[in-house]
Amino acid sequence: MRAMFAADTAMSQMNFDALAATALTRCDTVAECTDEPGRITRTFLSPAMERCSRHVREWMQSAGMVVNVDRAGNLRGYYGASSEPAPRLIIASHLDTVPNAGRYDGVLGVMLGIALIEALAGRRLCFGIEVIAFSDEEGVRYGFPFIGSRAATGTLLAPHLARRDAEGVAMYAALDAFHASHPYVIDAVLDPHARAYLEFHIEQGPVLAHAGLPLGVVETIAGQSRATVTFRGHAGHAGTTPMFLRRDALAAVAEWLTAVESAASQMPGLVATTGRISCEPDAANVIPGLVRCSLDVRHADDAIRRAAGENFLRIAEAIGNRREIEVDHVLEYEQSAVRLDSALVALADNAVSAAGVSPRHMTSGAGHDAMIVAPHLPSVMIFLRSPGGVSHHPDEAVYATDASLALRAGMRFLEGFQAHLEQFSESEQKPCTT
Amino acid sequence: MRAMFAADTAMSQMNFDALAATALTRCDTVAECTDEPGRITRTFLSPAMERCSRHVREWMQSAGMVVNVDRAGNLRGYYGASSEPAPRLIIASHLDTVPNAGRYDGVLGVMLGIALIEALAGRRLCFGIEVIAFSDEEGVRYGFPFIGSRAATGTLLAPHLARRDAEGVAMYAALDAFHASHPYVIDAVLDPHARAYLEFHIEQGPVLAHAGLPLGVVETIAGQSRATVTFRGHAGHAGTTPMFLRRDALAAVAEWLTAVESAASQMPGLVATTGRISCEPDAANVIPGLVRCSLDVRHADDAIRRAAGENFLRIAEAIGNRREIEVDHVLEYEQSAVRLDSALVALADNAVSAAGVSPRHMTSGAGHDAMIVAPHLPSVMIFLRSPGGVSHHPDEAVYATDASLALRAGMRFLEGFQAHLEQFSESEQKPCTT
Repeated sequence: MRAMFAADTAMSQMNFDALAATALTRCDTVAECTDEPGRITRTFLSPAMERCSRHVREWMQSAGMVVNVDRAGNLRGYYGASSEPAPRLIIASHLDTVPNAGRYDGVLGVMLGIALIEALAGRRLCFGIEVIAFSDEEGVRYGFPFIGSRAATGTLLAPHLARRDAEGVAMYAALDAFHASHPYVIDAVLDPHARAYLEFHIEQGPVLAHAGLPLGVVETIAGQSRATVTFRGHAGHAGTTPMFLRRDALAAVAEWLTAVESAASQMPGLVATTGRISCEPDAANVIPGLVRCSLDVRHADDAIRRAAGENFLRIAEAIGNRREIEVDHVLEYEQSAVRLDSALVALADNAVSAAGVSPRHMTSGAGHDAMIVAPHLPSVMIFLRSPGGVSHHPDEAVYATDASLALRAGMRFLEGFQAHLEQFSESEQKPCTT
Repeated sequence: MRAMFAADTAMSQMNFDALAATALTRCDTVAECTDEPGRITRTFLSPAMERCSRHVREWMQSAGMVVNVDRAGNLRGYYGASSEPAPRLIIASHLDTVPNAGRYDGVLGVMLGIALIEALAGRRLCFGIEVIAFSDEEGVRYGFPFIGSRAATGTLLAPHLARRDAEGVAMYAALDAFHASHPYVIDAVLDPHARAYLEFHIEQGPVLAHAGLPLGVVETIAGQSRATVTFRGHAGHAGTTPMFLRRDALAAVAEWLTAVESAASQMPGLVATTGRISCEPDAANVIPGLVRCSLDVRHADDAIRRAAGENFLRIAEAIGNRREIEVDHVLEYEQSAVRLDSALVALADNAVSAAGVSPRHMTSGAGHDAMIVAPHLPSVMIFLRSPGGVSHHPDEAVYATDASLALRAGMRFLEGFQAHLEQFSESEQKPCTT
């Protein structure tokens, strides 16, 4: 077995470059499958998603995989082991997008999975590899993310299935229609032979680009709190109300946002963002009586995140008390931090190092399918640098050389995973003693 | 002549109270004339304005006035002098409202004008009094204020007449339709015998209420600059972009608003307001890449106002430079301060004092018809306290006792104005030697 990998690692850079180039070209092809002409938008079970799946199915089949679609619309290509039954590595990401998206978020992870199978050039390993293209991660259609990976982990539940899209179509009805046109769907839940989960994804942030690194290893997916904070002061005429008699809700928010930014900047790894703001009555000549704004707080350590969120709200209260502004908040969403599997993180470190990249451990500030899978299956993610940190935007980009390095690291990861399974098999079912 | 006024000033408080009560009841009747059931909204030449004008015409006629409507839809009641031709005092305000208005802004000024004629109880003075109910001051229908007083001062010009309302009806077309149904309209321009302009108006701010004063004398109408300021940073993922790599347009605006508030508070009489704010892309999980906000700056002294506005923009530039945020602005509107007539202000001071109120000179932060008239005719305003400073809101209120004091002061003003004209007549056409 080792010999096989020795040959793989000797695979010329030219071959990785060619496979990476193909993967990126396929991202372009997928980008042409869109629900909105002129913009890239693919949502859960949409016609564009169906066209996209046909392309991906073809590429998976050409690479030697057996392809099925599951009950949640996930496309699942299986590249069998040298003998079956065998343990299974999942390599996955998603094919859906945000509205007016770029072409790499999610899609690139699936294309790199297929490219890795192609890099094996038909050689079988002691473990199978299942490449999964999740049908929904962004949650655009149902205002609810991770439908694909939730279905795969058995955590897509009745209340989720009852959600309705903008046209009033319930998720279960959309799935029923999908099953009617795809009678041979398989069960969505991960195969019991699955042993590990690997996801390649663009970083969607500026950290690797700023550090001049092509790849990074994700150790933790940050926890997140999201709240809506309301400041109620008193509307008044902009001309007739002296400064000292104002209860200006926007002035209070301005003071608060400045304090939040300053406090968040002092805590390493903490991010705090106000991305939405609206005021009432929203007229140039009226002092805002009410301001609503969002607050999104993330950190790898849940205790730090929660303490920071509470501190920010205390600051808001103090500012409100001083200004006679009523402050209240509604917690919209809370997600605990997810630590990825330390053994797989070590494998990924080695793989990235072997590709010539100094391994940088990262916290993902964005949620990913790996976050959903990690509680059920040891998981790891490898990030590719995002030029300019741009994502969820048509300008989203990736360097071809970085994609090539990701494939080189991926091949090393497969080697390391084989060794990992061999260790594992000594004490257990010896799945790798072919 | 003096004897007549001596009798007037002896008029019992009870009579002023009764006339004030009638004036307030008439404000209630006018409030029932609305374009929007359930809310008070009367716009230029609307059906509700037509119904309202019928009531006002009737009250004017009952008070002994000759009533006409002019080419701009202003209702004009003339209470003739003891002999004609005679100099003329204009007492005016407006009958239109903002959407979802209160019942006193503008309307009360007209009703107090009529009440003063009623207080004369048929006695004629050596000057005539014209009560004008302007057809538009708020500018709701054409996004352009003061149509009534502009027409009266000959400053409603061709480009204004070409403006279109939300239905696409040009102002000249609306006026043509109005003239078709009111064939006997008179010219809108003020009569050449007009010598002075007096406007009663609710303060629409909290200054008198805060000082515990029922009335105030307006000395200056503040100048105003209004700009839209745009901050362009860089949108980014709220989770993946560390604080130190952000170019958050909203964080820059927050810092700026705090600085503007602080600077404005240090300059007596200066007000600076941001009443509108919007950000792009306006999503809770995206760092704002662009923020647009309004800036409204007012002061009685144009040089102070301009210097403050320039200072605020310099602060914005400095914050933008430090944060790599591009700042630009568009000046939307500029109006110089208008000083009211010092002789009439002195008459108003005396009148207010005679009503038992310590005269407080005020700057009006809001624009009023007096601001349009003042460059053409010596003008003065008397403010009535606004409980809670509330205006442009259904909760707008006025104390009946304040309205009564305003009438008492108004009657004293008529007496003072007569003396003023007598002085004047010594050197000129002697209009008051009846």
